Order: sequence, then structure tokens, then C-alpha cells
Amino acid sequence: MNILIINGPNINLLGKREPEIYGHMDYVRLMDRVRAFATEKGVSVKIEQSNHEGMIIDIIHAAPGEFDAIVINPGAYTHYSYAIYDAIKAVGLPAIEVHFTNIHNRDEFRRKSVIAPACVGQIAGLGVRGYELAISYFLGEG
Amino acid sequence: MNILIINGPNINLLGKREPEIYGHMDYVRLMDRVRAFATEKGVSVKIEQSNHEGMIIDIIHAAPGEFDAIVINPGAYTHYSYAIYDAIKAVGLPAIEVHFTNIHNRDEFRRKSVIAPACVGQIAGLGVRGYELAISYFLGEG
Amino acid sequence: MNILIINGPNINLLGKREPEIYGHMDYVRLMDRVRAFATEKGVSVKIEQSNHEGMIIDIIHAAPGEFDAIVINPGAYTHYSYAIYDAIKAVGLPAIEVHFTNIHNRDEFRRKSVIAPACVGQIAGLGVRGYELAISYFLGEG
Amino acid sequence: MNILIINGPNINLLGKREPEIYGHMDYVRLMDRVRAFATEKGVSVKIEQSNHEGMIIDIIHAAPGEFDAIVINPGAYTHYSYAIYDAIKAVGLPAIEVHFTNIHNRDEFRRKSVIAPACVGQIAGLGVRGYELAISYFLGEG
Amino acid sequence: MNILIINGPNINLLGKREPEIYGHMDYVRLMDRVRAFATEKGVSVKIEQSNHEGMIIDIIHAAPGEFDAIVINPGAYTHYSYAIYDAIKAVGLPAIEVHFTNIHNRDEFRRKSVIAPACVGQIAGLGVRGYELAISYFLGEG
Amino acid sequence: MNILIINGPNINLLGKREPEIYGHMDYVRLMDRVRAFATEKGVSVKIEQSNHEGMIIDIIHAAPGEFDAIVINPGAYTHYSYAIYDAIKAVGLPAIEVHFTNIHNRDEFRRKSVIAPACVGQIAGLGVRGYELAISYFLGEG
Amino acid sequence: MNILIINGPNINLLGKREPEIYGHMDYVRLMDRVRAFATEKGVSVKIEQSNHEGMIIDIIHAAPGEFDAIVINPGAYTHYSYAIYDAIKAVGLPAIEVHFTNIHNRDEFRRKSVIAPACVGQIAGLGVRGYELAISYFLGEG
Amino acid sequence: MNILIINGPNINLLGKREPEIYGHMDYVRLMDRVRAFATEKGVSVKIEQSNHEGMIIDIIHAAPGEFDAIVINPGAYTHYSYAIYDAIKAVGLPAIEVHFTNIHNRDEFRRKSVIAPACVGQIAGLGVRGYELAISYFLGEG
Amino acid sequence: MNILIINGPNINLLGKREPEIYGHMDYVRLMDRVRAFATEKGVSVKIEQSNHEGMIIDIIHAAPGEFDAIVINPGAYTHYSYAIYDAIKAVGLPAIEVHFTNIHNRDEFRRKSVIAPACVGQIAGLGVRGYELAISYFLGEG
Amino acid sequence: MNILIINGPNINLLGKREPEIYGHMDYVRLMDRVRAFATEKGVSVKIEQSNHEGMIIDIIHAAPGEFDAIVINPGAYTHYSYAIYDAIKAVGLPAIEVHFTNIHNRDEFRRKSVIAPACVGQIAGLGVRGYELAISYFLGEG
Amino acid sequence: MNILIINGPNINLLGKREPEIYGHMDYVRLMDRVRAFATEKGVSVKIEQSNHEGMIIDIIHAAPGEFDAIVINPGAYTHYSYAIYDAIKAVGLPAIEVHFTNIHNRDEFRRKSVIAPACVGQIAGLGVRGYELAISYFLGEG
Amino acid sequence: MNILIINGPNINLLGKREPEIYGHMDYVRLMDRVRAFATEKGVSVKIEQSNHEGMIIDIIHAAPGEFDAIVINPGAYTHYSYAIYDAIKAVGLPAIEVHFTNIHNRDEFRRKSVIAPACVGQIAGLGVRGYELAISYFLGEG
Repeated sequence: MNILIINGPNINLLGKREPEIYGHMDYVRLMDRVRAFATEKGVSVKIEQSNHEGMIIDIIHAAPGEFDAIVINPGAYTHYSYAIYDAIKAVGLPAIEVHFTNIHNRDEFRRKSVIAPACVGQIAGLGVRGYELAISYFLGEG
Repeated sequence: MNILIINGPNINLLGKREPEIYGHMDYVRLMDRVRAFATEKGVSVKIEQSNHEGMIIDIIHAAPGEFDAIVINPGAYTHYSYAIYDAIKAVGLPAIEVHFTNIHNRDEFRRKSVIAPACVGQIAGLGVRGYELAISYFLGEG
Repeated sequence: MNILIINGPNINLLGKREPEIYGHMDYVRLMDRVRAFATEKGVSVKIEQSNHEGMIIDIIHAAPGEFDAIVINPGAYTHYSYAIYDAIKAVGLPAIEVHFTNIHNRDEFRRKSVIAPACVGQIAGLGVRGYELAISYFLGEG
Repeated sequence: MNILIINGPNINLLGKREPEIYGHMDYVRLMDRVRAFATEKGVSVKIEQSNHEGMIIDIIHAAPGEFDAIVINPGAYTHYSYAIYDAIKAVGLPAIEVHFTNIHNRDEFRRKSVIAPACVGQIAGLGVRGYELAISYFLGEG
Repeated sequence: MNILIINGPNINLLGKREPEIYGHMDYVRLMDRVRAFATEKGVSVKIEQSNHEGMIIDIIHAAPGEFDAIVINPGAYTHYSYAIYDAIKAVGLPAIEVHFTNIHNRDEFRRKSVIAPACVGQIAGLGVRGYELAISYFLGEG
Repeated sequence: MNILIINGPNINLLGKREPEIYGHMDYVRLMDRVRAFATEKGVSVKIEQSNHEGMIIDIIHAAPGEFDAIVINPGAYTHYSYAIYDAIKAVGLPAIEVHFTNIHNRDEFRRKSVIAPACVGQIAGLGVRGYELAISYFLGEG
Repeated sequence: MNILIINGPNINLLGKREPEIYGHMDYVRLMDRVRAFATEKGVSVKIEQSNHEGMIIDIIHAAPGEFDAIVINPGAYTHYSYAIYDAIKAVGLPAIEVHFTNIHNRDEFRRKSVIAPACVGQIAGLGVRGYELAISYFLGEG
Repeated sequence: MNILIINGPNINLLGKREPEIYGHMDYVRLMDRVRAFATEKGVSVKIEQSNHEGMIIDIIHAAPGEFDAIVINPGAYTHYSYAIYDAIKAVGLPAIEVHFTNIHNRDEFRRKSVIAPACVGQIAGLGVRGYELAISYFLGEG
Repeated sequence: MNILIINGPNINLLGKREPEIYGHMDYVRLMDRVRAFATEKGVSVKIEQSNHEGMIIDIIHAAPGEFDAIVINPGAYTHYSYAIYDAIKAVGLPAIEVHFTNIHNRDEFRRKSVIAPACVGQIAGLGVRGYELAISYFLGEG
Repeated sequence: MNILIINGPNINLLGKREPEIYGHMDYVRLMDRVRAFATEKGVSVKIEQSNHEGMIIDIIHAAPGEFDAIVINPGAYTHYSYAIYDAIKAVGLPAIEVHFTNIHNRDEFRRKSVIAPACVGQIAGLGVRGYELAISYFLGEG
Repeated sequence: MNILIINGPNINLLGKREPEIYGHMDYVRLMDRVRAFATEKGVSVKIEQSNHEGMIIDIIHAAPGEFDAIVINPGAYTHYSYAIYDAIKAVGLPAIEVHFTNIHNRDEFRRKSVIAPACVGQIAGLGVRGYELAISYFLGEG
Repeated sequence: MNILIINGPNINLLGKREPEIYGHMDYVRLMDRVRAFATEKGVSVKIEQSNHEGMIIDIIHAAPGEFDAIVINPGAYTHYSYAIYDAIKAVGLPAIEVHFTNIHNRDEFRRKSVIAPACVGQIAGLGVRGYELAISYFLGEG
């Protein structure tokens, strides 16, 4: 099973960015942990990060054929990128939206996801474990 | 580790209720599966179901001391029960809100959870796997 | 034909409660009249009343098998109980929502029913006759 | 007893219009059935239909003296014609608003009636039976 | 000076319609009083009444050439007829919107006029005097 | 008959203030014209102007006994001074709200008056004639 | 191919009505141009205009059988006539909504069409060319 | 004088629940203090607590005859229980709504009470003193 | 203990102002009663009244040093004076907002207080007793 | 005449993307058809596609001098890209907004275009014909 | 160059008022610093402070002739004083709105200024430097 | 001191773009002026411009270490780019939001900045001087 993991804007700054909210472990180590988890489960993952909405769409467009599923943390694009919503609908791959923090317990604007309706589901607030649980979910389906 | 699983109104009808939305496996078998999963992971679970908002609050109040964490699927109370929100905040146990379906992709009224802000996080749309992933999460924390 | 009649919160106080709005005939006599009407039409009715949202859901859950249709006056739960809405959808019995008063002509909050979308239809403002007309409707269908 | 039945815009197309929503029986036969029902009950009815908001108001204005009550299906005017609302209030005859379909379970815009507050009550979703039940109601009052 | 007075829906029922709000003097006598007032001031008036939105628009379209100004009481169309708004803008005659009652002190829906922005101004709450004051205003301009 | 005329904030700048909206005649001359009109009609008027909300309330409080009616142009306080609304209700004198410009045809915030519901009515958009017509109205009542 | 063109309220005043917005060519000449265009394309057109909402509905009802498609410029009814929306849905003919001006770039109230959802599509802002392009579209389909 | 004191959901956890908001004194001691205060004033009080909306309604229904007045802290039900609102209106006893904390200074959802309109008044933010002041108020009336 | 009592706009008219809402006892006697109550409790009070928002702010600014607490009835300023809100926050004295009537049961605009969030709490609907209970509260704290 | 055609995000997936909504013909063939149409009309077109909002803005900036007009299908950016709106306004070229589907008849979020106000007009719902009609329009202007 | 600096309600309490938000330097010293800065730049400044909305309007009215520009910190009036907005528009002097704190990052109600649209611009969040930068701006223009 | 100046979409077109709003001086000369101003003050500035939201985020991410502060004019992204908001919060550098025009006095959508809450403050409406004043501010802090 091949899973594409896409991280959106500012997620590359994890560990440096507002650590009281996002924790102190940095992005590279967090993704290393996800990669290790996947390997252990026999899943091949590719992890992409981009601050560019258009690039994220390009990456999603290229996924069919190469990947079986998508795990996406769209960062702040979660809240307004109907274009990413359309992209996920367009390629037809099953996707899970993941958020490190509990977006339902922060700023008002973070409570609504315009992308989640294009996904199988959403996991929020469980930190890096959210990525691993999403992988487990897809495995459980296989 | 002891985990309390609480299912809210109408969840007892799973398998009978709108199967095109909720699937054909019935409530008892679904919860048996969760129980088996927990046992395998060495977790003790107690599963409660009630259609009564007040009963759900009573159950939450009784949890501290006996349980380490809560997995709650508040059913339709998700969308208006500030009383359950208050109960979770009051007892201080870590809780994860779980939904069988992707509430972000259904009726408008289902997109907002008034309970999620009292929880560690939310897992939606992953069916019965959502319960298992929530248990995994708490284990991962232990 | 067996019809289940469910009366929600405060309806048991009819005759005592704000008589300038709800009239002077009390709850027991009103329901006696409905029962007599049903008997005359050859319909068997069971009339339940509860102030408890959860109890109303329990009653709805128990209806399939025993009853062919539901007449429900959800009282104030009309305006916020998505849980009762879910319950009616879940059991799949045809239901009619009835209100003694014209809810479209009172407080703003009373104008919206969150339960009506789960029903065949709604009869409002016709007093106790609304119950009888709902029974007539189900008969006409048989 | 003389009852005036007023059907608003597009109701004349019943049977032809979106039959999956409104059914296959056509307008003339539906109204014949209502007329037969009324005759059987000893009620004299006059049935008017107009697509013109102004004509509906003229018809309402002419009703006092000739009719004892009004049954009105205002079609789409239900949702914005404060002028028809005013007309019903102005003539002072008891009126019941009737809808073939359950307007509370369709497009958002159909859920609000600006005319219902001028009526005794509303019957929605019970098809042509709604007209008959409205007549029964007025008889019950007589 | 020639002034066209247009009365919208239900205004013909004045005196019969909700007299506790609109008073007991009937429409014909009220308009006779306005006509007498105009004559005394040397103004020629024509008074039209229609319950038909389209007819009111037709009347407005025919006004240029024959009339110098319009006094309009659009009745309930005040609150939603953008078509009458467009008609007044289209013919370019100065118009004053008049209301018998103080629309700013009644139902919420009556507080907003969509037609007033097309007029020179609005006089509300001054009863039949409002028509006379509107005529006085146009005279004062002449 | 004694009439109190109250002008609210910035009205003293008429003639200087945005003349393309408010015209070129200055405040003193405009009020002289109103005073002359009143004298001619045999009405005694007192004209007050203040930019202070509290002062306007004090003036209204002092009116009963000395004055029979109030003509008030509350300027921008029209749109938020519930305190002036309360003051007019409290003293019980009949009042007419007057505006030089057609407030229904300007900025969105100017379209709503919180004070008009405390008045007999409102005259807007008729310039200084609005004051005179208000006086005429009160005379017509006497 | 037979196409019905329906023009709503105030469109008959084109050329006279606010020429800085709607241009100087008058209604008759504009429709002559459309008729000439249609003839050249071998399309038979009938052009109707009415200020009456009810008449527009009557015209739509009469269209099936005689016409293959509808081009409609509903004027201000665009923004509130759910009755015309229902009429188009009811007759089932393909329709295109046309506007001379770019309604998306004018008053806020003009930006929303309640009728467009019943149509194949909408062409706005292209003046009389919009009518011709709509005819071309239906031809392209034939 | 007999006063019924009703405490709604989660209030039984006072002292344990979010002490930085609700303080450290626990529910039993707080109510003991209120009971002592009442005794000193010669008032008989009965104190009920329930997490069940339906039970709170049942308790209110049983109050007439036994009690002269109600002091109610509806907890989170304050913000959505129209059923409790109806119950208080139905029994007709004077009631005061009490809140430990200043609900006007917390989450947005806590600022609106749907129950307060059924009460004589509301006391918020004065801690346990609010209960005592409510008792004093009823005494002062007696 | 020294307590400053501030009464906002129109409160000086109590007894004269809408007695069916505010009662027949006039302002001077009501405040005499409060003063007597305070004296009896050994509290020194100063009672200020102003219709001027700015004056109320000046009075609040002068309070620290001289007074230990504030009881304020901001009248209609309750609903829009963020400046008074700021003033109370700025001086840091404990304040209680008091209203004679139950503002939660009147006009929609009266249900929201922008000042209450700066106060310890709010007492509404208990008439002049509200002032006395506020004094009792501060005493109870001392 | 040189026309620039810009296709926004996900439009490159036409034919693959949700074919029940967008049809089965793929992007390349659709644009070939538009190119052929343009050639036949003697118009030179350049067709650009990008998923990047910034790239679309860059392309618009480069248009003046080389192109006479723009045909733009902004995809999901239609609904939130004020930056593209600004870009079209900034370069001053006439532009037409085109959509394959009738955006007024889909998800609520698709009904509002923030870009249309910067354009000459909008054509929606006419499939690939919309592009051709837009070209025809610009030719008709030349 | 003569510049009028106007400080609105509660600004006189700077240094005492919520120092964690507004800082510890008091109003007099802050304004001394502004005055020194102005003197150094060769600008004559007059600094006014009032808690009275009406007084602020009076001060603005008196400005033309004596001053070339206005720097205004309207305090909480920023958010509702349309009367001050009107005053600035009326006198026609260039004005800059200044705020010590970043009003866009505080309570929701502080994010909207109803006065800014009457000004050249707004400087927020730069503390006392905001005043100095506003002076610099006017100098740069001279 | 090193300051990074970031200009968002369409700002590169200044001088060409809607000169009646933005003025006639072009982007290069405006930024030359800012650079000259900075040099004179002994500040090193780097000026970036991009139409790409993602690029602006990349530039912000690269700022720490090289720059002490940021001056950002996010153009239209001001109104919806929560991703840029997050980027500024993430890097932790002090930033000032600058706008050439008074965004509080233009289209409704321009009045709200979603980025300003991440900044020290905002300067709007002061043209190119806004950039210089922002630099002065940072200097004044140094």
C-alpha cells in the first residue's frame, strides 16, 4: 500500500512555531516518526510539504496511479481552499484530513473545514498520532 | 488502562437505522468488535449507551477514579448539548469525540460540534475503526 | 391499524397551562376525546407522554412491530431535538408532527421545527382536531 | 357551510410538474376528489386557481359574505407574499394553509411561511388529504 | 400640477381591515378627503388602487407625460417588490412613499422598505394626513 | 399650540457640511424659515440644537407642560440612541422624526432608525419642508 | 426550432430607463435585432413582455408543445420570484436566464438569482448579445 | 414561605469542577449554607439537583401547591431548554434564575438565556450569594 | 463601606415613565428607600443620576479612593456604551449592573448588555430590591 | 483579435473529474474545440491553465499589449480570490467569466463569485459552448 | 502647521487602566512626549481629551480655521459613534484615526471602526508612536 | 537594523492600476523612495513582491536570522489568507501591516484584515508614507 502524505502551509515550522500550541518536536523528526511507523506497518509513504495552494493541488493531481490513499493536513488552507476540496474530489482517492491540534477548540475561523466534506473523515487534536492512526485506518481497510 | 466508551442517542439502532448511511452491521456486533480490539490491546473497556442526555452526564460524572479516559459518540447531542460539554470539562478526564460518519459532509446542522472543544480531539467518518483508533491513541499516550 | 401517539414536555399540563393560549380543556379529557375518535374509526391507539427527551426516543425505538404509524407533538423539543429527529428517521415509521397552536404565529423560536423534516407532514394550529386529522390521514392511506 | 379553496401558482400543473415530488394525479382530478369529499360532507366548496398574486388577493377580498372559511395553498407565494398575508388578516375569515408536500423537508427557502401567521394553522405533507382534513376541521368547528 | 396617487394591495379595505391598527374611516371616504384637499390646493389628482404588482408597474409606466409626481402607498409590496422600485427609477418622476401607520413601529418585516430608495422621501405614521402632506410638498417645490 | 423642535448632532453645520448632500442653505436660515412658517400658522415653536446625546434627553425631559408636541431630527443618533428612544417614550408627548435627506437611500447604517418606533411617524427626504409638514400634521390634529 | 423569449418587468422601458446603465437603444429596436438574428439562424422566436409575475407564469405554462426552449430575462423578479422558479421547473423546458447588465456588479440585492437554479445557465452583462448567444447555444445543442 | 431550589446539570460537581472558574467550596457545603440562610430567615426550602432536563421539568410541574416560589440555576440548559422555559410559564409560580458565575462575561453561548424570559428576573455572577439574595427577594415581596 | 450608585438615562423619570412597565413609585422615593436600606445596614451610599454618557464615565473615573464598590443601572446605555464598559474596567472597582425590569423579557435589543462583562454580575427584574440586594452582596463580601 | 483564455484549478482534469457533473470529454479535446472555433472565426487565442492563484495573476498581468480580451474560468478561486478580482481590475482588459456548470444550481458556496464584479459579464452552465459564446461576444463588439 | 489632537473616553486613565494592555506610562507623560515631538518638528499642537461624545463633536466643529489637521483617538466611540463620523466629514479637515493598541487583535467589537471611513487613514497598535507618526504624515504632506 | 518589506498581489502594478484610487506614481519609483528613506535612516531594507500566497509564506519563513522586522502589504490576501497570518505568528518577528489606501473606506470586503491580528499594528490610507512610518516605528523601538 502506498500512501501520500501532504502537509500544507507553515507545518514545516513545527517545533519552532508557537510551541505552547504545537509542541516542541520539530517537523523533520515528527515526519521521521510517521515514516518509521509506516515502514513498521509495511506501508510505503511519500511525504510532501508545500506552502503553495497550487502546488498542493498539483501534487494531488499526480497522485492517482502512484498512491492508494491520501493523508492531508491542509494547514490554514483547511478553512478556505475550495480549490483543494475540488482537487480531492476530482482525483477520487480516499483521503483523511488530519490536524495536529483540536481545531474545534481554537479560533472561530479554524472550526470550519471546507475540505473535510471531500474526505472519508477527519482526525483532529491527536498530534502526530493522528497521521499514524490515519495510516492504520487505510491498512484496516485493505 | 480503563477506558469508558459512551454512545449517545440512536446509536443502539445501528444496522437497522438508515443503513445506506450507517452501514448494515448492527450495534451489538460493532461494539463486540471494539471490545475484542481493546482486549487484544490489553485495555479494559466499559461500553455504555443511553438516549438520555441526563444519563450520559451521570455516567460521565461517575467516571473519575474508575476510568483513565473517555471515548464518546454523543450522537445528535453533539450539536446542542452544552450540558455534556460542561460535564466533560468538569470531570477533567481526557476524552475523544468519535463519529461513525463524516459529520462534516452531511446536513449543515451536523457540521458543528459543541462538545468537541471539551475533548482532546475528534475522529469522524472512519466508522467503527474510529473507536479503535481512539483507544490506540490513549494507549500511545500511556 | 395501531397508532402511537407521543406527547412531549408540558403537554400534560394542558388546561392548566396558559389557558389563554392553550384553552381550558385539560390533558386527560383531550386525550380521552382522541381515544374515542380512534375507537370509532376502528383504530387502536396508545398515548404516551413524557417530559424526558431520552424517554421519547426510547418510546420511538420500541414502536416498530407494535405500531404502524406515529403521531407526535414534541412540545418545545420541536425546536432543538435533533436526537428525536434521528430517532424517527431511524425507526422508519411514518410520523405526523402535530401542534395544538399555530407555531408559525407565536415566538420566533417556535417557527422552526427540526423534527418535521423526519415526518410525513405537519399539522399545526388546529387544536385537538389536529390529532384526529392525523389519524384520519393514516386511515386514508391504509 | 361554504368554503373557498384557493390554489396559487403552478398548482394547476400538478400531475405534470415534477411527478417524483408532487405525484402523478393531475390537478383537475385532485380537485374533483376534494369537491366530491366536500359534497359528501355537505359542504359547498368553490375552487379557484391563479398564478397571479394580485388575483389571489382580489379573490380573498371577495370572500366575506359568500364564504365561511378559506383553505389556501399559496404555492411559492407562501415564502414571500406579505400582501397575501395582509389580505387574509384584512378579511378576517378563518383560513388554513395547505401544502401537498412537506415544505419543512425540502429547499431551505420553502421552510418559512410568511402567510401561516395569518392562518388558524397549517397542514403540510399530506397530499390532497390535507385539503380534505382542512375541510373536516372547519366542519368540526361548525 | 397633476399628481398620481397609487395605493397598493389591501388598502382598498381600509375601514374594514384591522380597524384597531388602521382606523375606522373607509377607503372611499379617505380618498375623497385627499381629493378635496388637492382640489382646494389647485392640484389635479388621479387615485389608482390595485392589488396586482404588475398593474402597479403598468400604472407607473403610463405616468410620465400625464403626471408631474407620484404619491405611492405600496402596501405590503413595500417590503419585497424590487420590480416596483425599478419601475419608479425607470420613469424618473419624483415620488413620495406614504404609509398610514408607522411601519417602523410594527412587525420587523415592515421596517424595511425596498422601494423608498427610489423615492424622494418617505412619510410614515401620519394617517391620511401623510397623503396631504406629500401633495403639499410637491406644491412647495413647484 | 407649542411645538418643540430638536436638532441633533452636526445639523448646526448645514450649509457648510457636504453641500452636495445637504444643500447650500445654512442652518440659521433654514430654521428661520421653519420659524416663519410656524408663526404664519399661529404655532409657537422653540428650536434647540445639541451635539450631546445627554443634552437632547434633558431637553426632552423638560418638554412636558411647556410643549404639546415634538419634532425631532436626531442626526446620527437616529441609528443607535436607544436612550433618546426611551426618553420620548418616557415623556409621552407625540413626536415626529424628521430627516432632511432620504435616509433610506444612503449608507446602510442610516436605513434603520431605533428612535422612530417611539414616534407617531417619520418624514424623510423632504428637506426643510419635512419640518413644516410635521408642524402641519400636528395642527391638523388640534 | 422554436424559442420563447420572455422579458419581465420594466424591460419594455429600455432606452428610456436609466440609459447610463441600460444603454440608449430602445426595447422595440433591441428585440427587432434579436428577431432578425434568430431569423438569420433559421430559428423561430416569439417575444413576450409582461410586468405581471402571474402573466409570466401563465406564459411559461403555455410553452410546452409550442416551444423547444426558453430565454428569460426576469427583471427584478429574478431576485424573489420563487413562483417563476417553480414554473420553469414545472414545465421542464430548457431555459437560459439572460440579463442586459452584469447583475454581479450592481446592488447587493441583484447579485442573487432565485430563478437561475431552475435554468440550464445564466448569461449576464453582455447586453442584447446575451439573447443572441443564448439562441446560439440552443442551436448548438440541436 | 416555601421555596423550591432547583440546580441543573453539573452543578453537583461544584468544588471539583474547574475551580478557577467556580471556586473551591463544594456543592454540599454551598447548599448547606443556603439552607442555613433560609432557616435563619424563617423560610422553608427544598433543594433539588438533576442532570436530566426531563426531571427538572417534572420537578417544576410538581411545585404548585407545595411551593410559593422557585429559585432555579438551570446550568447549561439555560442556553437551549425551551422545554424548561415552557414548564415555568406553565406552572405560573414566580421564579428567579440564578447563576454562580457572570454568564455575560464568559463563552458567547452562555450570554443568552432562553429561560430568563419566563422568570421574574435573573441574578448572575454573585456566587452562592445569588441564591440567598433570591430568597431575600421573595421574602421582601411577602 | 462606601458604595457609589449610578443611574443612567431616563431613570430619573421613574414613576412618570411607562408606569405599566416601570411601576408608579417615583425616582426620588425609590432612591430614598435605597438610601434608608443602606443606612440601616451601616453603608454609606452616594446616588448619582445622569442622562449623559460622558458624565457617567466622569463619575466612574472619580470613584476610586472615595468608594469601595459601584452599583450601576446604565439604562439604555447598557446596550451600546462600550465607553462605560471601558470605564468600569479602567477603574478596577467591583461593580454590579442592576435593572428594574427583566431586560431578558422585553425588546430584543434590551437582552444584550455590553457593560455586564465588566461587572461582577447582574441583577435584573427585581425592581428597587435589585439595588438593595446588590448592597447586601457587597456587605456580604466585606 | 487576440483573446487570452485562462483556466483555473482542477479544470485540467475535465473528463476525469466527476464526469456526472462535468461530462466525459477531456480537457485537451475541449480546448482543441475552442481553438478550432476561434480559428474559424479568425480569432487568435492562447489558452493557459494553472492551479496556482499567483500564476493566474501573473498571466493576467502579462496580458495587456498582447491580448484584447480575457475569457477566464477561475474554477474554485471564483469564490474567494479577491486577488484575481484585483488583477483583472488592474489590467483594465475586458473579461468574461465562464463556468462549465451552472454554479447557481450547485453547492451554496459556488453561487457567489467575487471575481464577476470585475468582468463585463458571466456565462454559466453552457459547457464548452460558454467559451465559444464569450469569443463570439468579443467579436460582436469589435 | 497646527494640529488638533483629540483623545476620547478613558484615554485620560492611561497608565492606571489595565496596564497589561495599555502599558504603565500615564496619560500626562504620554501627551507630554507627543507635544515635545511636535515642537521638535516645528508643529503646533493642541491636545484635548473628553469622555463626552457631544463635546468631541463640539471640538471638531470648532477646528476649521484654527487647525490644519486632526489626529483622533476616539476610544470606545470608535465602534459606534456615527455622530463623530458625521462631524469629521462635515468639517472637511484631514484626520487620522490613532489607537494605542492593535484593535484588530482584541475583542471582536473593537475590530470595526465606524469613524475610520471619514479619515485619511488609521494607525493602530503602535502605542504613543502612532500619534507621532500621524504628525509626521501631515508634515510630509505639507 | 534589517527590515524585510513584502508586497503582495497586484501591488507591482501601482501607477498603472486604477490610478484614481492608487495614484499615478509607479511601483518601482515608490519603492525607490522607500529604499532611499530607509538608507537615510541607516536601515537596511530588502523589498520583495509576489503575487503568490505560497511564495509570500516562503519569504516570511526565511526571514528570521536575516531580518529584525517585517513590513507587509498583503494586498487582497489581507482579507482571506489565514495561511499568511499563521506564517507571521510562526516566525515570531514583529510585523506591521501597511495599506496604500484606507481599506476601511472602500468595499465592504476590504474592511476586515485576517492578518492584522498577527501584527504589532496596522497603518492604512497614508500611501507610500505608510511604509516609511512603519520603518520609523521600528527604529523608534530599537
